[in-house]
Amino acid sequence: MTTGTLYLIPVPLGPIAPEACLPPDTLAVARRLDTFVAERAKTARAHLKAMGHPRPMQELAIAELNEHTKTGEIVALLAPLKAGHDVGLMSEAGCPAVADPGAELVRAAHRENIPVVPLIGPSSILLALMGSGLGGQRFCFHGYLPAKEPERAQKIRELEKAARRDRATQLFIETPYRSAALLEALAATLAPDVLVSVGADLSLPSQYLKTGSAKNWRGKSDAVKDRLVVFGIGA
Amino acid sequence: MTTGTLYLIPVPLGPIAPEACLPPDTLAVARRLDTFVAERAKTARAHLKAMGHPRPMQELAIAELNEHTKTGEIVALLAPLKAGHDVGLMSEAGCPAVADPGAELVRAAHRENIPVVPLIGPSSILLALMGSGLGGQRFCFHGYLPAKEPERAQKIRELEKAARRDRATQLFIETPYRSAALLEALAATLAPDVLVSVGADLSLPSQYLKTGSAKNWRGKSDAVKDRLVVFGIGA
Repeated sequence: MTTGTLYLIPVPLGPIAPEACLPPDTLAVARRLDTFVAERAKTARAHLKAMGHPRPMQELAIAELNEHTKTGEIVALLAPLKAGHDVGLMSEAGCPAVADPGAELVRAAHRENIPVVPLIGPSSILLALMGSGLGGQRFCFHGYLPAKEPERAQKIRELEKAARRDRATQLFIETPYRSAALLEALAATLAPDVLVSVGADLSLPSQYLKTGSAKNWRGKSDAVKDRLVVFGIGA
Repeated sequence: MTTGTLYLIPVPLGPIAPEACLPPDTLAVARRLDTFVAERAKTARAHLKAMGHPRPMQELAIAELNEHTKTGEIVALLAPLKAGHDVGLMSEAGCPAVADPGAELVRAAHRENIPVVPLIGPSSILLALMGSGLGGQRFCFHGYLPAKEPERAQKIRELEKAARRDRATQLFIETPYRSAALLEALAATLAPDVLVSVGADLSLPSQYLKTGSAKNWRGKSDAVKDRLVVFGIGA
């Protein structure tokens, strides 16, 4: 029996129209499917409605895959695919299976020889890298840095070293309520000439995107206060 | 005087219609501009024509920024921006300023406080990461590995160590004529249980995307023969 295909469906990075920021091919797949896996069913329904899905939302099957999902339950999520049904994997924002639990489903699909098709859409990490000017010949994404000192400062120094040694841009994210503190820590900890890029609300009308030397960021942390930020370091 | 904005314009990853794989917002910006910077003017003209740019191609100003461009010449490329004119930066394929010389222009723009707006579009690196199932909580992109032994095998072992130590997916690319040899080297050099993802012709009808253990890739390098491949390693 032919299996279904697992489509990886990106969604907007914030409150903007999916028709403006997603390619028609991505929208067409999302509108055609009736079975989805998402971090939260509620958010997925809102995304699918905004994408103009033609069916009533209650007719769609949306299974959840998040931090509460046990490894054994992931195999069950493959059942529709094994039965020949296409499934769409969605993230809360941006591209699925990058910094979310969806990667486990993709990995399980490969194990069962189920075709996987990643679709084109917005990624705050990639937009931050492009827009930073720090170069993407080599780069690393680290997720969140430690929240507390002295671990945070130690990690920042490690990243500066890695940026110099490997000539690789070092990327990381911070939650809105800690982003200003992290920018201050970067300005205080890094060598003055190290470049720091800051990308907030990427692809949204409120976008903030700026690259400058560590010393030039001193006293300017208000720029990112209460915003989800992708940071970059380049030496 | 108000400066112009530097837009970073992604283009398709191969011979598919821009209208299908680029969001309307990206296409709208590309069609509105008349001044561009690109690796090769000829390719840029082909992309802009395919995108449905309304002006005759000979009326567009397309400056080149590539491996022959001297650092001093990059400042000259900012002149239209400083004069208040919007400029579009394009890559040969995919997203500009990621693995191409365009990053230097973006960096120079930040130095002059010129606004930078990265637009949404396809990236083979990001699609390979999403589709690999190897997880993107932490990941590194390394560009090309050394072409010759024993340097190549040594680098492969280093990447395996990094994947285990940092629980980070390790990504790298290879040119079509060497991709089969690299897949063989990965299968022979990595521990048998290490996962290797292979992504070729991503977002194109000929897409090939598969993740399996190193031992399962043995003798299967024909799958990627003569194709540009994004590889991933996850432990």
